[in-house]
Amino acid sequence: MTSAPGSVRANEAPDEPPSGPLTIAQIAEHVGVSLATVSKVVNGRFDVAADTREQVESLIRRHGYRRQKRASRPAPLLEIVFHEVRGEYGVEIFNGVQQVAREHHLGVVISELQGRHTPGRGWVEDVLARRPTGVIAVYSSLTDDQTDQLRGRGIPLVLLDPTGETGHTSPSVAASNWNGGLSATRHLLHLGHQRIAVITGPEGLLASRARLDGHRAAMDMADTPIDPELIRVGAFQITDGLTHTRELLRLPNPPTAIFACNDGMAYGVYQAAAEAGLRIPHDLSVIGFDNMPPASWIIPPLTTIDQPLQKMGTTAATMAITLARGEQPPLEHVELATQLITRASTAPPHHPHP
Amino acid sequence: MTSAPGSVRANEAPDEPPSGPLTIAQIAEHVGVSLATVSKVVNGRFDVAADTREQVESLIRRHGYRRQKRASRPAPLLEIVFHEVRGEYGVEIFNGVQQVAREHHLGVVISELQGRHTPGRGWVEDVLARRPTGVIAVYSSLTDDQTDQLRGRGIPLVLLDPTGETGHTSPSVAASNWNGGLSATRHLLHLGHQRIAVITGPEGLLASRARLDGHRAAMDMADTPIDPELIRVGAFQITDGLTHTRELLRLPNPPTAIFACNDGMAYGVYQAAAEAGLRIPHDLSVIGFDNMPPASWIIPPLTTIDQPLQKMGTTAATMAITLARGEQPPLEHVELATQLITRASTAPPHHPHP
Repeated sequence: MTSAPGSVRANEAPDEPPSGPLTIAQIAEHVGVSLATVSKVVNGRFDVAADTREQVESLIRRHGYRRQKRASRPAPLLEIVFHEVRGEYGVEIFNGVQQVAREHHLGVVISELQGRHTPGRGWVEDVLARRPTGVIAVYSSLTDDQTDQLRGRGIPLVLLDPTGETGHTSPSVAASNWNGGLSATRHLLHLGHQRIAVITGPEGLLASRARLDGHRAAMDMADTPIDPELIRVGAFQITDGLTHTRELLRLPNPPTAIFACNDGMAYGVYQAAAEAGLRIPHDLSVIGFDNMPPASWIIPPLTTIDQPLQKMGTTAATMAITLARGEQPPLEHVELATQLITRASTAPPHHPHP
Repeated sequence: MTSAPGSVRANEAPDEPPSGPLTIAQIAEHVGVSLATVSKVVNGRFDVAADTREQVESLIRRHGYRRQKRASRPAPLLEIVFHEVRGEYGVEIFNGVQQVAREHHLGVVISELQGRHTPGRGWVEDVLARRPTGVIAVYSSLTDDQTDQLRGRGIPLVLLDPTGETGHTSPSVAASNWNGGLSATRHLLHLGHQRIAVITGPEGLLASRARLDGHRAAMDMADTPIDPELIRVGAFQITDGLTHTRELLRLPNPPTAIFACNDGMAYGVYQAAAEAGLRIPHDLSVIGFDNMPPASWIIPPLTTIDQPLQKMGTTAATMAITLARGEQPPLEHVELATQLITRASTAPPHHPHP
């Protein structure tokens, strides 16, 4: 399958270099530029003419890039990229990643995308300059180009709580969101609730869709009709819980229980209930999703679905380190179990619906 | 002041090398070991005989260490060391540091000390191997040895929210804790409270002591007597707020207001009030310290003292980068203003004490 340098195979362009990963020297010779220029492209710097850059990138895409001996060691860093560092979601994941990183004497670099779900151009440039041992993208999607650039440099990428389609080839770690949605609604059904409202996360987000589908499955399997008026689209913000609950409570036939698809929105449900003078769980049952620390100290403590974020962090870190060693992880797409945590915000309906 | 290599000055030991920072080669020659051995010590590895290590370290302490040309560039990283990553305190600081780091194309490495306030031996070894542009130690104290090791390698260290004595020479960024304590108690006094309880942070911690002293100053300046029974020592945990408030509410003459020296303990005060069937602020006023995100969404929203954690992060990062350039920051010890944020948890006492 390999051919001697300089030889031409029928199905390759005449000036195609040998197959297999190329060194900087081979790329430089082939494109007809200096070693320094290739090195700039490889290290993600942008002070290179666009067409030169494209030629080098395209060659690397087709053949791969083999680091020189001296440059072959990645930095002792694991990189976590968050779409946004806010609240305790990221803290839990960090603590999981950090636990594995420490054992391997790797520093943990955190980068943040300021609320965007796809990193901008500067981000990948900086990552390539740092040359981490691996990258864990949390609740974010990289573009195909960015994924290719990391792959071209041999930097493994693991997706944690992926936001989009799982058609791509990057390994991923997620929570069993569908099962969580199922458990949440089953818990409410067992208590005797029938009018169950759901405040979902953003439409189009996998985790969000899976939780809602779990809810639907529980309702269907219990032969309980779903009232479309009780399905509300939120965006995982506290204020979504507040505004949707205000509206839900004004319905002629309001829900007796609300499933908020994350804990933050459940806090908003608490606010709306307090405004309306309703007591939780006596007048309204509330269940969340995540089991963030405040769930255990708010009044009343929140019944919720535990999402094992810390364990998702350790799993993703272990996968990245395994890939960096050139080995395959035992599973490419891992889904970790969610769990119902029963606290004081759910109870049988005070006025059960007939 | 400089002397030629090999020359001996009357006030130096006969085998003392020239003054000024030494290169690896000069250190190796002087101690009589290989370049590789010196390099190991300089890079914080521990596979070196203890006495050799001590000779090299001692020479660096006295003369400083000048990096070889090739090794002279630190990694494009800023390192934050937290005693523990828990809750949103660290998130706020990270977001401040990250803002400055991004402008300078520096990655942010986070290390965590698992709840200890002084990093263990492995920590500094890993930091030296990463060679960051600067280190920001949050709510932690490094040992003199660790500080020396960073200084010897030209890695600037900035303390953020320092826990201990400020006698040391590392630059620092803090919040004006004393002023915050003063403002909190003045707010309660203005509302008409006289029986004001305080739940402090850990004794011996600077921030904690300063907040209590601010409270005392406000009471003294208003000629309001301080009842020692109303001063309770906590440890900044939610449960401290809960247990101390239970006791305070059982006193024959209970307080009408509680100043919890961080927001976490204020959440515990809310729990104890709910248990006792007391309404906040009607039956009990509560004020916190920090202004973490939950302060604005809990019920009722918490009056608190804003600690500008994000701004503290940007300030510390800017100082570290300035020092890394070999310049002095305009101020070595910065104290940023705290601010009273009035929300719904404080009101005039329902039964004012005569």
